[in-house]
Amino acid sequence: MLANIDRLRELMERDGLDSVVATCPENVTYLSGFWAMSQWVRRGPQAYVLFPKGGAEPCLIANSGILDLVPDQNPWVKDIRRYGYFQIDVDTSVELDAADKLQKQLFESKPYDGSVEALAEAMKEKGLTRGKTGIDEMGITPQCMDQLVSLLPNVQFVRCFSLFERVRSVKTAGEIEIMRTAARITERAIDAALAVAREGVTEREMLRAFNACLAQNDAAPVVGCIGFGNRSAMINVQPSDRKLKKGDLVRFDVGGRYRHYRSDMSRGASLGEPHPRVAAYYRAVEKGLLRAYDVVKPGMKVADLFKEVVETVRREGIPRFKRSHVGHGIGVDGYDPPNISEKTTEVLEENMVICVETPYYELGFAGLQVEDMLRVTSHGAESLMSLPTGLRII
Amino acid sequence: MLANIDRLRELMERDGLDSVVATCPENVTYLSGFWAMSQWVRRGPQAYVLFPKGGAEPCLIANSGILDLVPDQNPWVKDIRRYGYFQIDVDTSVELDAADKLQKQLFESKPYDGSVEALAEAMKEKGLTRGKTGIDEMGITPQCMDQLVSLLPNVQFVRCFSLFERVRSVKTAGEIEIMRTAARITERAIDAALAVAREGVTEREMLRAFNACLAQNDAAPVVGCIGFGNRSAMINVQPSDRKLKKGDLVRFDVGGRYRHYRSDMSRGASLGEPHPRVAAYYRAVEKGLLRAYDVVKPGMKVADLFKEVVETVRREGIPRFKRSHVGHGIGVDGYDPPNISEKTTEVLEENMVICVETPYYELGFAGLQVEDMLRVTSHGAESLMSLPTGLRII
Repeated sequence: MLANIDRLRELMERDGLDSVVATCPENVTYLSGFWAMSQWVRRGPQAYVLFPKGGAEPCLIANSGILDLVPDQNPWVKDIRRYGYFQIDVDTSVELDAADKLQKQLFESKPYDGSVEALAEAMKEKGLTRGKTGIDEMGITPQCMDQLVSLLPNVQFVRCFSLFERVRSVKTAGEIEIMRTAARITERAIDAALAVAREGVTEREMLRAFNACLAQNDAAPVVGCIGFGNRSAMINVQPSDRKLKKGDLVRFDVGGRYRHYRSDMSRGASLGEPHPRVAAYYRAVEKGLLRAYDVVKPGMKVADLFKEVVETVRREGIPRFKRSHVGHGIGVDGYDPPNISEKTTEVLEENMVICVETPYYELGFAGLQVEDMLRVTSHGAESLMSLPTGLRII
Repeated sequence: MLANIDRLRELMERDGLDSVVATCPENVTYLSGFWAMSQWVRRGPQAYVLFPKGGAEPCLIANSGILDLVPDQNPWVKDIRRYGYFQIDVDTSVELDAADKLQKQLFESKPYDGSVEALAEAMKEKGLTRGKTGIDEMGITPQCMDQLVSLLPNVQFVRCFSLFERVRSVKTAGEIEIMRTAARITERAIDAALAVAREGVTEREMLRAFNACLAQNDAAPVVGCIGFGNRSAMINVQPSDRKLKKGDLVRFDVGGRYRHYRSDMSRGASLGEPHPRVAAYYRAVEKGLLRAYDVVKPGMKVADLFKEVVETVRREGIPRFKRSHVGHGIGVDGYDPPNISEKTTEVLEENMVICVETPYYELGFAGLQVEDMLRVTSHGAESLMSLPTGLRII
């Protein structure tokens, strides 16, 4: 199980919740271990996880058409309810293997008319017909929410997407292992993109090499910002046919998804000797990032981390450096808490996985950025990275 | 412009709407031509397109942090309003190029506190403080919706995601060109996966080849179901380490995203001679699909197309063939209307792009599926495919 169930129980108790319902793809997968494909590839398809307080069994609600995914994924939530019609035939002349047997059993279970009927019924069975239930408001459609309220008029529903975010911000050991691999794969893809870098290569050609490498390592592309020269100053630069020239800076701000978990990192490279101001500014933002490794530890105020990092960049060469944040948590979502900003009131906790970044964008000049993924340990910070942080000369 | 604006105006008039607001990624991109990156890669970030009836100018609302995407994408909606803070510096010692100049201008415009303040202000300016406005309920968060209602208490807001779906179901020439390319790239990726097929290759290895080929052709993977032998009967089979054996059927149900548009297709292959029942059943489902090319034309009832296809499969070799649908529209979403089912009351219209598919899943045996992307023409159907529909022997 990847979910931090202890933390979930703790926050449910803090908020006086009798149960919570995950509804958006990230939270459904996080809480149940089930990747409900249809809601990941489209907007609208409904899947829920009902998680009651105390010892009551959680329940997964999914469309009949994705139940074939259960045997391979083997989610820890075992009470699975389906809705909607899907026709599956069975070859009765052969002995089914274990996966097919389980599928057959799931397809023989009672189908509910819709997702909300199934959820409301599960809540009734678990005695959740009154009291307070947290509902993740980011995945359930307004129509389904209306229907749920009408089926359970005595339940007080409160929005709880932010509670899920807070639960997710402290990672379990299994999550950290996956994110370690996600980081390694993404670094390999940066190397693959740099391997095709030469005068005349286009941003788009480098992105192709980057994405193909992710694919070859079982990761999916999500963010692929690769910009050359003054285009590197575009915040989310989408690769174009701009050709690489001698002296160009190349900025990567890239990330993928591996086993449902995100990666996010940034590096810079220069084709030949960099412009002296590029080199100096790059060192300044790099030192800002490196400062995080000196100061991060559990209990540190996130706002203090922000200040340490920003002040370092200013002192090291960009006096006017200004940012709304210098990083964020990462997990099944690209931005888990904490947001590393001046206004954040949280403190760092052990096993948060955070991205620290110090991007500086100057139109007409360049965008300089170094971003690492790191884990808060019991006494400091552990990098999930292996690529050097320095500006790479290619 | 890709959006079918004439159809949008027509349906707005039908529903008595003074304006519509796109809020989910697909509709924002569809209506404005602007790919609002943050809402595509995460859940929560807000971007809107306000489209008033009559001649009033539409308006795009986006976070400051993605405005760098405007110059490259050059959306046809020119009234762009931003919200939130983002720090961008400018090199004042150089002459900015056109893209940087436009960025600078956007970053100098007034930032609103939040997305809803910006939207409400735009609606006020356009005189939309009463009357009926359609709001796409799939992208705006419940919190933002509450805020919008409180800022514009005299506006009657009605949900209009389904109106957008209906607008999108009839494609413009530009959309059809993109989808033609999306189909071609996906077929190439199927070929790339089959090129590595030999005894002992795994499902996962074939998916890697498939996804890497998409990446090399500027498309992103979305659906990658590739299953061998009895695993081909799993509806959404996710590639595993199962090795390919002589006589195995390989089922592909795959699709990607290219320039925001989806592809979706299915083919089968057999390593060596297929089992006779596999060959016979495959021919039956293939003939079901091919029947669509004989009967599709504008004005045909979708329910009649469903019947024609299902009856053909039954007659041609699978008497018990049963389906809830035999296809669907496709566009910026993987499932645009019409849903090709018995219950659909719509008729086919010229320039709908539809997927026709006749999957048959039998646990313990195999999953047989052929799926084409095709366009409804003025007098019939045009295939977007070039791969033969027959079972390929490898």
